[in-house]
Amino acid sequence: MVRIMQPVLIDGVWREARSVGTFQAVDPSTGALLPGLFPISSFEDVEAALEAGGRACKDLVQVSPDEIASFLERFAESIQGRAEELIDTAHRETALPKVPRLGTTELPRTIDQLRQAAKASRDRSWRRAAIDTKSNIRSIHGPLGGPIIIFGPNNFPFAFNSAAGGDMAAAIAAGNPVLAKSHPYHPTTTKLFAEIARGCLEGLRLPPATLQMIYHLKPEDGLRLVAHPLTGATAFTGGRSSGMRLKEAADRAGKPISLEMSSVNPVFILPGGLRERGGAIAAELSASCAAGAGQFCTKPGLVVILDDADGRDFLAASKRNFEAPPSGFLLGRSVLESLQASVSEMVREGAEVLTGGKPVDGPGFQYENTLLKIAGRAFLNHPGSFQHEAFGTVSLVVLAGTEEEMLRVAKALEGSLSVCVYSDKAGADDGLYLRLAPILRTKAGRLLNDKMPTGLAVVPSMVHGGPFPATGHPGFTSVGFPTSLLRFTALQCYDNVRPDRLPPELRDENPTGKMWRLIDGEWTQK
Amino acid sequence: MVRIMQPVLIDGVWREARSVGTFQAVDPSTGALLPGLFPISSFEDVEAALEAGGRACKDLVQVSPDEIASFLERFAESIQGRAEELIDTAHRETALPKVPRLGTTELPRTIDQLRQAAKASRDRSWRRAAIDTKSNIRSIHGPLGGPIIIFGPNNFPFAFNSAAGGDMAAAIAAGNPVLAKSHPYHPTTTKLFAEIARGCLEGLRLPPATLQMIYHLKPEDGLRLVAHPLTGATAFTGGRSSGMRLKEAADRAGKPISLEMSSVNPVFILPGGLRERGGAIAAELSASCAAGAGQFCTKPGLVVILDDADGRDFLAASKRNFEAPPSGFLLGRSVLESLQASVSEMVREGAEVLTGGKPVDGPGFQYENTLLKIAGRAFLNHPGSFQHEAFGTVSLVVLAGTEEEMLRVAKALEGSLSVCVYSDKAGADDGLYLRLAPILRTKAGRLLNDKMPTGLAVVPSMVHGGPFPATGHPGFTSVGFPTSLLRFTALQCYDNVRPDRLPPELRDENPTGKMWRLIDGEWTQK
Repeated sequence: MVRIMQPVLIDGVWREARSVGTFQAVDPSTGALLPGLFPISSFEDVEAALEAGGRACKDLVQVSPDEIASFLERFAESIQGRAEELIDTAHRETALPKVPRLGTTELPRTIDQLRQAAKASRDRSWRRAAIDTKSNIRSIHGPLGGPIIIFGPNNFPFAFNSAAGGDMAAAIAAGNPVLAKSHPYHPTTTKLFAEIARGCLEGLRLPPATLQMIYHLKPEDGLRLVAHPLTGATAFTGGRSSGMRLKEAADRAGKPISLEMSSVNPVFILPGGLRERGGAIAAELSASCAAGAGQFCTKPGLVVILDDADGRDFLAASKRNFEAPPSGFLLGRSVLESLQASVSEMVREGAEVLTGGKPVDGPGFQYENTLLKIAGRAFLNHPGSFQHEAFGTVSLVVLAGTEEEMLRVAKALEGSLSVCVYSDKAGADDGLYLRLAPILRTKAGRLLNDKMPTGLAVVPSMVHGGPFPATGHPGFTSVGFPTSLLRFTALQCYDNVRPDRLPPELRDENPTGKMWRLIDGEWTQK
Repeated sequence: MVRIMQPVLIDGVWREARSVGTFQAVDPSTGALLPGLFPISSFEDVEAALEAGGRACKDLVQVSPDEIASFLERFAESIQGRAEELIDTAHRETALPKVPRLGTTELPRTIDQLRQAAKASRDRSWRRAAIDTKSNIRSIHGPLGGPIIIFGPNNFPFAFNSAAGGDMAAAIAAGNPVLAKSHPYHPTTTKLFAEIARGCLEGLRLPPATLQMIYHLKPEDGLRLVAHPLTGATAFTGGRSSGMRLKEAADRAGKPISLEMSSVNPVFILPGGLRERGGAIAAELSASCAAGAGQFCTKPGLVVILDDADGRDFLAASKRNFEAPPSGFLLGRSVLESLQASVSEMVREGAEVLTGGKPVDGPGFQYENTLLKIAGRAFLNHPGSFQHEAFGTVSLVVLAGTEEEMLRVAKALEGSLSVCVYSDKAGADDGLYLRLAPILRTKAGRLLNDKMPTGLAVVPSMVHGGPFPATGHPGFTSVGFPTSLLRFTALQCYDNVRPDRLPPELRDENPTGKMWRLIDGEWTQK
């Protein structure tokens, strides 16, 4: 049988890749290779896509936000129409369950994101137009002038897919073309999305290079890509070491890069809360850790409690919960290896495995649910060693000797996407909360009370971001419309520019009749 | 005479510096040393200031925006009361004229900036509070949790002063304490501002470390400072090489840094405009270049015209204008040296000096007004060599052989703060404008028509920012309230947080009765 290498999507055309190698996806439930043969693109493919993307930028500026919205809505609808095929494909490539997950939550969320992005595009208020009439100075958030490069992660084949997920929706709604790099764990899923998107562009005024897609790159070519003069910006969701390398390359070239690269999502359970409802919280913890087989960016990987009788009861209850069979397959061999390395490092630095701690025998990629514990003092000796994000149903409980030690653990935390505090309802924990919360507030983008961090509501107020190393800049979010669009924009001022040369959003007349604008210092829809 | 070293302001106290050396300011009009002896701080001073700044962050969160506004207003008023002393001092240290400049425009602007920052603080709408009632998720822009380090530039001793300028006002209005590093060219001016600010903190609930000030650092200590774990963010306005070193250090540590570091501010004069009013535009150009003795960040350093009869007339008129005596003193020896190096490089790469091109004999730092020209083809051979920002009344005219070549020159431009296009009123240039503007739009934060870029209106729509290497990120501005505050904030989400633990801006009740908030997707003052 002659194996046909899958084509890449460049400038609207599915064309043969100029490849430097090939790869195949793997079924995580068996470890067996899946049939499709996919190219690792050479930098020639990248340059062709960047040049087409550069031209597409100029064309997209001429397209009305309503038509961009129409594309996103049509894409959402077409995805709905191909749901079964998408779900089957993603299930095969990721082993994530169809129900509950791929079909019941992730695909609906993906479709909803595209519709929210379309709504933001039509509404235009996200652009924050400002007009000062006396000086005739006007400004607005506009597209970057180069394509947005999207590196999708392994763990959300739909909602964070480089060709259909939140980054893609935000980048296009902000008026930028996208060059999607598929995650090599789910190339056929990404290909399907790209095919659907390509079809949805037919008959619209958006340029064919609005969405381009390649499957894979050599790491050094990824570094060249994010630093390329034609690149507008990059969005990367993935692991810390790859993220840091891309960040350094982009930073050196002065190219914006939106990174989501690491988070342990600490959970503090205060003593009153443990006393009041430790068993219920333990159940919440194990369920949250097991969601998506422990492969959510917001998985609670670190739990901090006091080392008292209630704390030890909580630990025992958690251990029982974690002794259940693994909740699913890991997404690939690299996830398993990185999980093993992370557990080994924690043990080496003094953590004790309470349950689990090794791979599950058998086909596919599975790891025992793993609960570890460490004393607060030992944690504080090497806090960095216990803060490596690791996908899998694994969590480390830090037993603080005193409230003061709990505060010191909080101070030693690196930046995360989220941080939670559980406390009692009667008010016994209020004093400690007041001391703890100010430390935690600037350690994470999202501070939760009495609630585990997995399960992101895609609402305007959501923040999926946070201080380094969770992301590269704490002022942005990658989830939540319309705020997530701002990652892919430049702030553009028009000073004394003649009226007919202004974008419609900055002319005297309100282009939609209801777009919010800051006119002479006052927000108005006039 | 025993020389007393000036103390530094750390944690509210003027204390002796732990210094590694000393320096004196220089009178630019004579080259003579000025009397005060100032310390180059050791890293011990820095660490003491960072620790005090870290504590001040926690205190400032407890202070109401109204009280922060009161401080800024009181500071503005006290500066007004000490105007004469400030103007005398800054004049001595910079040789910038008192009238028209230090007293008539720059000090009033500085006072106005503080008042605008106070207004933004009181108004609170800049924080972009978002509330989703159904999910009980709320988010807001909040302070960074570490002091903002401000490196002020040499060229605006008032309006960009690290202890009183736009960055200081924005950082404090956003709820952050400031550690100001004076520019070594005007230490006494900075000291005066710090003294006034210290006095204004008396009797208010703001912590004494709200503003701290040191004079100077070894370069390597500056790099450690911007990357320090206790640092919240950095604002740097200055030259490209220092900016790039600070950027690299901050980027590597994942610390936000707001940079303004280089801009040549290209001006395109289209053929119809030249024909219609070339003489008037030439007069505008020379006046804009000479403003502040050519030491504005927005000085037009590059002019692009067609090499036709009108172009040559424009060149001749500009040459005559530039043949006037220098408009003032350069701020220091380093400015003079960097200007000489820049002119030499341009000449080496083929530019021809039409007038000027050497220092003026005599005391103080002066350089002849200098106009250079180069053919478009030669420019395109080494475009980077002609885009080094150099303070001084110096500009390079690029003579493009054709309109196509003019477009190629536009494409070869690096990022600037501003870019201008002059065109005729009758419409002859409209076709060329339509081809040129899309190229230029993403090359600068501010696009002007028929107007030189010097002279910034401090209005909400102003953008003093732009793509690299003008700044480090094109989504921000360092001038214009309230937008400039966002550089010093984190996006902070409160997910299911109990009502009494929320900041007032995120509680159900509107804290001012008129703050704008995004509630369930709709902007409202309710």
